[in-house]
Amino acid sequence: MANPGLEDQGTIDLAEYIYRRLIQLGVGTIHGVPGDYNLTALDYIKPLGLAWAGNGNELNSGYAADGYGRIKGIAAVITSFGVGELSAINAIGGAFAEKSPVVHIVGTAPLAAQKAQACVHHTLGNGDYRAFPEMNKHVTVAQASLTDAETAPALVDAALKACILHSQPVYIQLPTNLVAAQVRPPTVPIDLSHPGYDEGYENKVLDTLLEKIQSSKKPLILMDGLTARFHINEEINEFVRLTGFPTLSTPFGKGIVNENLPNYYGSYDGAVGDESTKQQVDDADLILNFGPLHSDVNSMGFSSMPRPDVTVTFESHSVKFGPETADPQGRVLVIQSFMTRLIKRLKATELPKIQPFTRGASFSPTLLKSLKPAADGDAIKQDEFWLRMSECLKPGDLILTEAGTCFAGGNTFVLPENTIMMNSCLWLSIGFTLPALQGSAQAQREQRKEGSKEGARSSGRAILFIGDGSLQMSVQAISDIIRNRLDVTIVVINNDGYTVERVLHGFEESYNDIQPWRNTLAPSFFGAPENDPEYPVITAQARNWGELRSVWGRKDVQAGKGLALIEVFMHYADAPKLLVKLAAYVANRNKANEA
Amino acid sequence: MANPGLEDQGTIDLAEYIYRRLIQLGVGTIHGVPGDYNLTALDYIKPLGLAWAGNGNELNSGYAADGYGRIKGIAAVITSFGVGELSAINAIGGAFAEKSPVVHIVGTAPLAAQKAQACVHHTLGNGDYRAFPEMNKHVTVAQASLTDAETAPALVDAALKACILHSQPVYIQLPTNLVAAQVRPPTVPIDLSHPGYDEGYENKVLDTLLEKIQSSKKPLILMDGLTARFHINEEINEFVRLTGFPTLSTPFGKGIVNENLPNYYGSYDGAVGDESTKQQVDDADLILNFGPLHSDVNSMGFSSMPRPDVTVTFESHSVKFGPETADPQGRVLVIQSFMTRLIKRLKATELPKIQPFTRGASFSPTLLKSLKPAADGDAIKQDEFWLRMSECLKPGDLILTEAGTCFAGGNTFVLPENTIMMNSCLWLSIGFTLPALQGSAQAQREQRKEGSKEGARSSGRAILFIGDGSLQMSVQAISDIIRNRLDVTIVVINNDGYTVERVLHGFEESYNDIQPWRNTLAPSFFGAPENDPEYPVITAQARNWGELRSVWGRKDVQAGKGLALIEVFMHYADAPKLLVKLAAYVANRNKANEA
Repeated sequence: MANPGLEDQGTIDLAEYIYRRLIQLGVGTIHGVPGDYNLTALDYIKPLGLAWAGNGNELNSGYAADGYGRIKGIAAVITSFGVGELSAINAIGGAFAEKSPVVHIVGTAPLAAQKAQACVHHTLGNGDYRAFPEMNKHVTVAQASLTDAETAPALVDAALKACILHSQPVYIQLPTNLVAAQVRPPTVPIDLSHPGYDEGYENKVLDTLLEKIQSSKKPLILMDGLTARFHINEEINEFVRLTGFPTLSTPFGKGIVNENLPNYYGSYDGAVGDESTKQQVDDADLILNFGPLHSDVNSMGFSSMPRPDVTVTFESHSVKFGPETADPQGRVLVIQSFMTRLIKRLKATELPKIQPFTRGASFSPTLLKSLKPAADGDAIKQDEFWLRMSECLKPGDLILTEAGTCFAGGNTFVLPENTIMMNSCLWLSIGFTLPALQGSAQAQREQRKEGSKEGARSSGRAILFIGDGSLQMSVQAISDIIRNRLDVTIVVINNDGYTVERVLHGFEESYNDIQPWRNTLAPSFFGAPENDPEYPVITAQARNWGELRSVWGRKDVQAGKGLALIEVFMHYADAPKLLVKLAAYVANRNKANEA
Repeated sequence: MANPGLEDQGTIDLAEYIYRRLIQLGVGTIHGVPGDYNLTALDYIKPLGLAWAGNGNELNSGYAADGYGRIKGIAAVITSFGVGELSAINAIGGAFAEKSPVVHIVGTAPLAAQKAQACVHHTLGNGDYRAFPEMNKHVTVAQASLTDAETAPALVDAALKACILHSQPVYIQLPTNLVAAQVRPPTVPIDLSHPGYDEGYENKVLDTLLEKIQSSKKPLILMDGLTARFHINEEINEFVRLTGFPTLSTPFGKGIVNENLPNYYGSYDGAVGDESTKQQVDDADLILNFGPLHSDVNSMGFSSMPRPDVTVTFESHSVKFGPETADPQGRVLVIQSFMTRLIKRLKATELPKIQPFTRGASFSPTLLKSLKPAADGDAIKQDEFWLRMSECLKPGDLILTEAGTCFAGGNTFVLPENTIMMNSCLWLSIGFTLPALQGSAQAQREQRKEGSKEGARSSGRAILFIGDGSLQMSVQAISDIIRNRLDVTIVVINNDGYTVERVLHGFEESYNDIQPWRNTLAPSFFGAPENDPEYPVITAQARNWGELRSVWGRKDVQAGKGLALIEVFMHYADAPKLLVKLAAYVANRNKANEA
């Protein structure tokens, strides 16, 4: 293997080329599972200073990479062709749907075997080697099939560029016989500029936006989750602060805006939320909608989608007014520079006097304050639980909420500043967040080590809320967390099965039951250390408020160091209000054949 | 829901139609995971007398269905579209490659949502609802997209017929709004006849075969694993017995022929097995090759493939001589009736005097007899372990061997009669066998309850040998086994990581390590009962021969009732001879770019 320091002379192995490019783009950990068609490609990881996550299975490695990519802006996962890549493909589909930049490198059979359509293991036995890349085309924005040393570097660069620009997965096939093929080392960074970028256009759009803002009487900001992919956390919060415009979050967008800001008005849940809030949104004359994801779940049955005629939509490379489509001349802007310019201009602009906004009755801080104290022996109920857990959160926490009750409940958290919320609002593959916890906690640990501004904002704690049914899907990710010695807290809501499905259909049906596990045995089963002060392991159960307060009151739990698994018992029939309302909508649509 | 007894009057719900057809074809258990797009379709399962396996995740449900299908000749798995079906797709790929008849029913969004390209959850967010069926086309032999009550029954029937005829997976999309669509109930069984079946042709082929047999001097039978898909266990063994021809098994075909027959000569491992055996195979003037799967692994690097000019290849619908391809007139035979006729004719035929066959030095019974007794304190070594374990097997056992060391080791078992071996020789997705154990044990339990001849052959014991690395991939299948209260024994080979990968490449590399688990905690973690005489749970560890003998000597372990998890420790660098030789071949090919 060539010296990683060698930059512009001689040649290096193709595998090393790929890793160097990934390192340049910010990858510090490679996720994946070893397999005979990728083993030689794994030899480069350690010598190049990268970490190897070594996941328990490929689906989890894909989910973990998705979580990692949402934090660091790029992630990489390596699998073996056929079996490995197909095990991961659901996770790649999720990254595609919710725009997480994951580079999926697949170690394939040597080219000669492919050409001969040889019946080697991990193939379908019919000589069809194209099946797997064809399947991946549906869930990746670029595919690079590396076939020779001459063209490989450019194909790799193009795929990585597409991954970054679209913030979506790409697919790279690396045949075993090309791992050590000699290529020129990368001498300059990958050109990540968008081919259609036009500074004049960016300024023109900015002018139009400022006019809209100045002439508005009832403006508001609707923050959605794809904004997190723009990596403009500071600019966004500065914008919200500067304008003072009433700001609402979608469930997917929760956590992006500092909830302590006086003009933060909570979650916007359309028809299933506060009527007064919906009225005010409907009356708005300007809605600044950042990073929208208009899925049924995120928009509460499409009921919270802003009126197109008053909406400005902010995407990574466009700011569109009303029903406007892409610029006919193909010009694009870049949201980062656009926001920087916008803030600069705003500081020199007089902002309009705007109509006051009225808080809805279900604004979480209000509800939290109005909660009556719970007696120690009181059962833990969903709606109370999520509000009260807010008091256990700290600035800079990374918080993940799994699909189902946790997603709906977490939407009512009162978040301290600089927290990051991670959930799924479109793909909603249950089991996603446990591996994503591993990936995202790993990414944050790297950011802290790197001393980046993102790292400085992190508390070092990563907390997952997950139901007992979802936990079962991807439970071996707990092993990956221990293996990588990540500091995480896993709160398992044990409510005897798939409550989210129960509220949809089959409330008492046995198909919504699960095999009951002894969840607190998980750390021990997965080989957690038993007496390591550097990696403390805590397990606890809470069946009432007294037990929960006592668990959460522990200093070691609050510290969030090592692994804590806290099992909280709730009734199987209990579900957050928001979920019940949303489920009624979904069940009805499924039955009634409505679009 | 209509009365399941109602046969030829009125209408029934479409979902019920599908289940009735599945029941007619032999399905007794539906595998799968509940999800909001399939919930209403699950309502029919219990009332129709079907069992619901309720798997921990979809990949495992797919693997389990594969195992179930290999035993019962048909299996069904239900998932939700998008997330669920993609989680299962690796298992479907495996069923496609190794020809297991799995019906994959996918609950999809209502048709109106699909038509409107609505951004509902579990979609990719781009309105592309065709992506998932397109992906599934590569791994299924028929696809039925149900869109109305009129055409649905015929589409279902056609898909099920393709599943049976090809013994490969099919894909059925059932939109939520059609679950209760009214259709005519099935009045006659599905026509499973092959359109090209020609009795005259079958007889003509039979004549040719008999001539070949009679004129042969050095004939032999090479039994391969796809023969298990023909469900002609008795006929095959009668044929082997009647002819007395020397019979060899491929690794995939092991267990099909009764190894107690005097003309059984063990495993044929081509260039990595006994030279004298290879020489005799090379010298044969007639090789009757049943159900071949010519993968690199099954053919030991393509070295055990019989010479085409002397080979007769038996498939489910053809018997081909030499390099002959499909009948130009499209005529086919049916292997079951062909074998029945063949046996009848053979009984009236004088068979040729054939040259004696010489046993190879590595014939397992010989090796087993020559083993020196192991002292109690002796470490357990791979090659000895597999031979000695033969003495723990009973007639009628179902035995599964996971990819890697277990696959290679299990190939040296001396099997009692009527045992069924299940392994993977082409797809080789690690983790497959643990869920397949659940599915196949479930299928055998049904066969025993049904009182079928297959059920009568079963001992009621199901034993899996699996490595610690593979176990991690799909470990929640242990939960499914407990939930379904299946009688299984799981032997976990704990050898500190992926030994099969080590012998391929990176012997000491950390990427071939795994997180060490406390494997014997598994039953407890997954909620196994603690004191239920009806479902006893046993866990044990063996670090040397004395411990292993003492564990395996226990009456409760021998009974195989309930769940036993036995962890056997071996050195990470130890691997069965066969695996080391095969790995050297694979590693070399991967590096050298050879087909």
